[in-house]
Amino acid sequence: MADRHPEMDQVIGKLTKLLGERCSTAQAVREQHGKDESWHITEAPDVVCFARSTEEVSEIVKICATHKVPVIPFGAGTSLEGHVNAVAGGVSIDLNEMNAILRVSPEDLDCTVQPGVRRKQLNEYLRDTGLFFPIDPGADASIGGMTSTRASGTNAVRYGTMRENILSLKVVLPDGRVISTGHRAKKSAAGYDLTKLYIGSEGTLGVITEITLRLYGIPEATSAATVCFADIEGAVQTVIQTIQSGIPVARIELLDDVQVDAVNRYSKLDLPVQPTLFLEFHGSEASVREQAEQVRAISAEFGAGDFQWTTQAEERTKLWQARHDAAYAAVALRPGGQLWATDVCVPISRLADCIRETKKDLEGSFLVAPLVGHVGDGNFHLAFVIMKDDPKEMAEAERINARLIQRALSMDGTCTGEHGIGLGKMKYMHLEHGEAVDVMATLKQALDPDNIMNPGKIVPLRAAE
Amino acid sequence: MADRHPEMDQVIGKLTKLLGERCSTAQAVREQHGKDESWHITEAPDVVCFARSTEEVSEIVKICATHKVPVIPFGAGTSLEGHVNAVAGGVSIDLNEMNAILRVSPEDLDCTVQPGVRRKQLNEYLRDTGLFFPIDPGADASIGGMTSTRASGTNAVRYGTMRENILSLKVVLPDGRVISTGHRAKKSAAGYDLTKLYIGSEGTLGVITEITLRLYGIPEATSAATVCFADIEGAVQTVIQTIQSGIPVARIELLDDVQVDAVNRYSKLDLPVQPTLFLEFHGSEASVREQAEQVRAISAEFGAGDFQWTTQAEERTKLWQARHDAAYAAVALRPGGQLWATDVCVPISRLADCIRETKKDLEGSFLVAPLVGHVGDGNFHLAFVIMKDDPKEMAEAERINARLIQRALSMDGTCTGEHGIGLGKMKYMHLEHGEAVDVMATLKQALDPDNIMNPGKIVPLRAAE
Repeated sequence: MADRHPEMDQVIGKLTKLLGERCSTAQAVREQHGKDESWHITEAPDVVCFARSTEEVSEIVKICATHKVPVIPFGAGTSLEGHVNAVAGGVSIDLNEMNAILRVSPEDLDCTVQPGVRRKQLNEYLRDTGLFFPIDPGADASIGGMTSTRASGTNAVRYGTMRENILSLKVVLPDGRVISTGHRAKKSAAGYDLTKLYIGSEGTLGVITEITLRLYGIPEATSAATVCFADIEGAVQTVIQTIQSGIPVARIELLDDVQVDAVNRYSKLDLPVQPTLFLEFHGSEASVREQAEQVRAISAEFGAGDFQWTTQAEERTKLWQARHDAAYAAVALRPGGQLWATDVCVPISRLADCIRETKKDLEGSFLVAPLVGHVGDGNFHLAFVIMKDDPKEMAEAERINARLIQRALSMDGTCTGEHGIGLGKMKYMHLEHGEAVDVMATLKQALDPDNIMNPGKIVPLRAAE
Repeated sequence: MADRHPEMDQVIGKLTKLLGERCSTAQAVREQHGKDESWHITEAPDVVCFARSTEEVSEIVKICATHKVPVIPFGAGTSLEGHVNAVAGGVSIDLNEMNAILRVSPEDLDCTVQPGVRRKQLNEYLRDTGLFFPIDPGADASIGGMTSTRASGTNAVRYGTMRENILSLKVVLPDGRVISTGHRAKKSAAGYDLTKLYIGSEGTLGVITEITLRLYGIPEATSAATVCFADIEGAVQTVIQTIQSGIPVARIELLDDVQVDAVNRYSKLDLPVQPTLFLEFHGSEASVREQAEQVRAISAEFGAGDFQWTTQAEERTKLWQARHDAAYAAVALRPGGQLWATDVCVPISRLADCIRETKKDLEGSFLVAPLVGHVGDGNFHLAFVIMKDDPKEMAEAERINARLIQRALSMDGTCTGEHGIGLGKMKYMHLEHGEAVDVMATLKQALDPDNIMNPGKIVPLRAAE
């Protein structure tokens, strides 16, 4: 645990004056804000502030800037690489009370929300407008957190990631000033792309307090299917062929046999325990039929079993809820186990190689790690379920993870397709980016010279104070 | 003209040693590199270097960094806001000899090119692969220049802009070091998005020497149409309704009556001299028919004349060539005239208002300025044709341009959808971005502390040396 900042009492005094009871030093509250869903050990902030407006966030940040105290933005807490851990103590800003949907413009297919809005909340709100927001990382994450980690998920293969679906941001800078990074025009060539710089910056460059999102019309028709394969190779080749053929699938997800078994148990399904693709198609009635027929034909070439249709909305929801619960299903395989989820992304032409070699690693290991992924983007996950207190298990997960990352990088891929860097993957930043890490460090130092914004994340800098 | 840098002779000596005859101080060569297609007055660099490799660019930049001499990357010279003018003198790096297509991976739908590759060259090269690169700003621009200005054009309504279609870049930093901004994975959450930071940075943060692009399958079917309207309102409402209905048009372009007249003369067409939409549809045979029928029905509601089909590839090419030549057609309206092209972009719901008020301004002016645009994105251009030597005309173009920009900004739009800032729009940066300009200036100063990279562009900084 970090040493307490010498001026922390003063900071807490000022924050209490500003926020009253919405400034908490209760141990349970601090600990809840010192970890996410990953295996990283809780590192509690010294104090938690529950902000209600951009102005309040700005005031909080100004106090922290004055005293050079760390600031860690906190959303749903569903991140997976230790993003919110207060490694240098400081002030956690909980943004869950900033959960207003500020504006929806159906005529422009966009909306503006506060960072605490959850993705399910947004889609429920939008339902009557005929619009939806497609990015779906599985967890009911906050839009602010999804922005900060450049989240994506099952629908990204068709609709892109958070990177492609944010028009502009309101940001509180590390000195407390407030900027807008852009406007609502669909495109702009007016200066540096600050919007994209803040997307994926994991709270290290400022606090995002408003997000303007692109929306889409709910498709006229939606259908879903599952199809299982004798071996994982056939499933992956089906995916590759589908993507290379330009079929605009809305979702194409792979679960290996271990994951299917876990999902069956957890979500009370009875899928054959084989490598399986979950698919969804969006479009007109005719186009959905056409797409599904094309994928069915491809899968048949690669030794698939039958296409199982789930045309009812209710069945579809059950299927995708099961997919979203895949990580929880994995954890349920081992009572007392802790999730260690990792993800990589490679060019689609290398996906089969990458998965084959990874499965070989797993076969040679004593650890259980279901494989699941957004394979249409070349992105997949391993969900190790470990006993945190067992150093042998930790070391083995670390070893397989390191090999996975080196493999992805050797294939011109990335060490994380969507989970982000957080604490867990900082050690791989140089391996992936080389000297470009220096450029990132230069940006961080220029925008946050006192290193108060979520210090110790993303960019290896000087040791956090 | 800028004072000659005191160490310029030394710099030229070193560059000549490095490049031999590919380092030129000939006046004609310097002047050709001191302007683009805009009205901005030529400001010649002191010397022009014709680079052939990333290593050479790096060596050139290192020499310039040592002596703190400006570096201006130069591509096709088709920019429209004075982007390449050497306002502080210095070294122009001509990248046209770096025009190799380094790699095409049909299985991953991507390729890597050098910055001097032209967009037509790329598409000719790709033809046999069944793939194409959609971004099409009209001019046969270089891919490096298109990257640097965040170009878009007619196809952006369906395929996005350069921002959405670049996977990674190789960049020579202002100190001569070389970095890659990313890899070939379709998505990544690994650190700050340097790729997006360099897209649209107009040569002010480094020299781009390789670009990895996304490619698309050539659609099974393509069809094009023109449709004219009694008034511009009907045309714009048709566009708005089309976009709001989610019809995935590949192109939807508006030409006002003045522009149609110019195009008829220049490209030997006989379109009715009325506000006209040029459309293109991509997809399967069935989907192209369906899309066209939907747009036809919408246009009929808004008082359109007949849909004129151009299904033959040759006719289509002629039509789109005419659209691409719109700016040249405008210039041809006035012998001796100079193009002053400006562009703004607004949310689609405000497009009709923005165009209506702009046309009113033009009706009250003595200047001729055809209106043409990528209206599906809310983006349109005015092409003033002025006599550069007439201060009254210059002042009038400036006045209407300023009103246009203020109007777009008041509608939550941007002062440029695709041309970029260059010299011409720097004065509007604060109006559009407020304090966010300070953040941009901080980034510029951090990455290029001696302000050698294309100084005097994008961000209002200290006066160029």
